[in-house]
Amino acid sequence: MIERIAILGTGLLGTSVGLALRAAGFTGTISGWNRSAHGAQQSLEMGAIDSIAADPLAASRAAQLVLLAVPIYATLDLMEQLSTTLGPGHLVTDVGSTKGVINEAATRLFNTPDRAAFLPGHPMAGKERGGAALGDANLFRGAVWLFTDDTSWKRSSQSAALAEEWRKWVIAMGSRAIDIHPDRHDEMVAWVSHLPQFTATALSALLEDEVGDAPELKDVGGRALREMTRLGASPYSMWRDIAYTNTAAIEQALLKLEQRLAHLRENLRTPELRSEFEQANRFRRE
Amino acid sequence: MIERIAILGTGLLGTSVGLALRAAGFTGTISGWNRSAHGAQQSLEMGAIDSIAADPLAASRAAQLVLLAVPIYATLDLMEQLSTTLGPGHLVTDVGSTKGVINEAATRLFNTPDRAAFLPGHPMAGKERGGAALGDANLFRGAVWLFTDDTSWKRSSQSAALAEEWRKWVIAMGSRAIDIHPDRHDEMVAWVSHLPQFTATALSALLEDEVGDAPELKDVGGRALREMTRLGASPYSMWRDIAYTNTAAIEQALLKLEQRLAHLRENLRTPELRSEFEQANRFRRE
Repeated sequence: MIERIAILGTGLLGTSVGLALRAAGFTGTISGWNRSAHGAQQSLEMGAIDSIAADPLAASRAAQLVLLAVPIYATLDLMEQLSTTLGPGHLVTDVGSTKGVINEAATRLFNTPDRAAFLPGHPMAGKERGGAALGDANLFRGAVWLFTDDTSWKRSSQSAALAEEWRKWVIAMGSRAIDIHPDRHDEMVAWVSHLPQFTATALSALLEDEVGDAPELKDVGGRALREMTRLGASPYSMWRDIAYTNTAAIEQALLKLEQRLAHLRENLRTPELRSEFEQANRFRRE
Repeated sequence: MIERIAILGTGLLGTSVGLALRAAGFTGTISGWNRSAHGAQQSLEMGAIDSIAADPLAASRAAQLVLLAVPIYATLDLMEQLSTTLGPGHLVTDVGSTKGVINEAATRLFNTPDRAAFLPGHPMAGKERGGAALGDANLFRGAVWLFTDDTSWKRSSQSAALAEEWRKWVIAMGSRAIDIHPDRHDEMVAWVSHLPQFTATALSALLEDEVGDAPELKDVGGRALREMTRLGASPYSMWRDIAYTNTAAIEQALLKLEQRLAHLRENLRTPELRSEFEQANRFRRE
C-alpha cells in the first residue's frame, strides 16, 4: 500500500497530481520539493502537499513513491541521483513529455532487483501556462496517461506491486492508462503534440511581428485566432528540453508542414485546394 | 422602422441571425431563401424564419432589409441581380469574409440616390461546420461585427436611416459594431482569420496522411491537437471564395509562416528557440 508520496517539482503537474490524489481519496502523506520556495509554498497552501521538503533526496528516501514532475533534463538529473539513493522498496515515476531518453536512463539506472523501480509515465494533460497556482484536481479527468514501461520484467515483486498500485491511482484521478512503446510514443507525440505546439509558437511569434501593435487586433481577432495561438503562451523552459530530446522527429514534422503550407499557397486558386480541404475534413470526421 | 427582413441563405450565419433577431425582440416578418430546400425547411422549423421564399428577388422586393448570407461569389451574383430590382427604400447588407470585392461591387451597383443602399458587414463569428441545424441565437454574443462602409455619403436619407437601424440590431444581437476600411479589413483578416484557417487545414491534412490511420491517435491526442485542428473541419465551399478574393494577402501570410517554421526547425537546439518562444509569449500576454 502506498502511504508516503514525494512530489519533486510542485508546478502545474505536480500540484495537480497532489490535488487529484486527495480528491480521489488518497489519505497518506504527500511531501513536496520545488526548486523555488514560492511554488512549494503555493502548493502547500492549496492542499496539494502536506509538507515542504528541503532536500529532494531525503524526501524521496522517506517516501515509497516518488513522482518527478520537472522538465526532462531535470528529471534525468534527479534519476541519476535517486538511483543510488533509493532501493527496491521505492517506485519512481515521471510525467515527462518525451520518453526515449527517460526509458534509456530507467533501464540503465533502475529496475534491477537491488535498485528502485522506475515507471515512465506521460499524462496527456496540461495548460499553456505553468505554475502551482494553476494546479487543478480535475486536470487528468478524461485524459490519457501513457506508460512506456518496457523493462518491468526486471523488477522485484515489491516494486512491481507499487507500479501496479500507481496505475490504479492514475485511473482514480480520472485518467485512462495506456501502454505504448517508447519509440512509438516519441514518434506519435512529435505529430500530435510537438508539431501543434511549434506551429502555434511560430504562428504567434509571426503575428506578434506583423500585427502585434495593430490597434484593430483585439477587434478583428475571433475564436479561431485565440485557439490557434493559445499554445503560444507555452514556456520555453519546458519546451527546450522536448526540442532537445525529440529533435529528429520534430524536424521531420516541421519540414513536412512547411511543404504542405507551400503546396496550399501555390494552389489557392486551383482545384487542388479542394483536395486539401477534403483531406483535412477527413482528419476531423466524427 | 425595419419590419420586413429577407435572409438570402439560411445556413449557419443566416439562421443564427434570424434566431438572434427574434431573441433580441424583433417582431417583424423574416422570410428566408436557401439554395437547398432542406436548409430552408430546417431554418423554418427552428423559428429563424417565418416563411420560405421561392424566389430571392421577389422576397427581397417585399422586404426593407435584405441580408446576404451566402459565400462571396454567390453574394456578388445576388448583388448584381438585386441592384436593378430594388430601389432607395431598401437596404442590402452581407456577412462576407472578404470585403474588397464586396465594397467594389457596392460602390458600382448601390448607394446612389436612385438605388438601394448596401452596407458591407462581417461578423467575426462562426463555427467550423456550417448548416442551419447549427444555427445559434447566441452566435454573435460578445463578437465583433465589422463594417467597411466607405460610400455611405452617397446614400439617400431613407437608406441611411435603414443602415443606422441595422447597426442597432447588430448591437442588440450582442455584437460590437466596429468600422474599418475595406483594404485594412482584408489585410487584417488575412493574418488573424485566413492564416489560422489555412494553417489548420494544412496541419489537419498532413496529420491525416501521417497518422490518420494510427490506432493510438485517439489515445495520444489531447486538447492541443483538438484545438489546433478544429478548423480542419471547415468547408471548402466557403473558403474557396475567400482564397480567390484575398489571394495576395493570404499568399504572403502563408509564405511568412513557412519561413518562420523553417527558422524554428533550424534552431531547435540553439538559443534562438528561446527568442521565438518569448516572441510568441508576447503575442499572448494578458
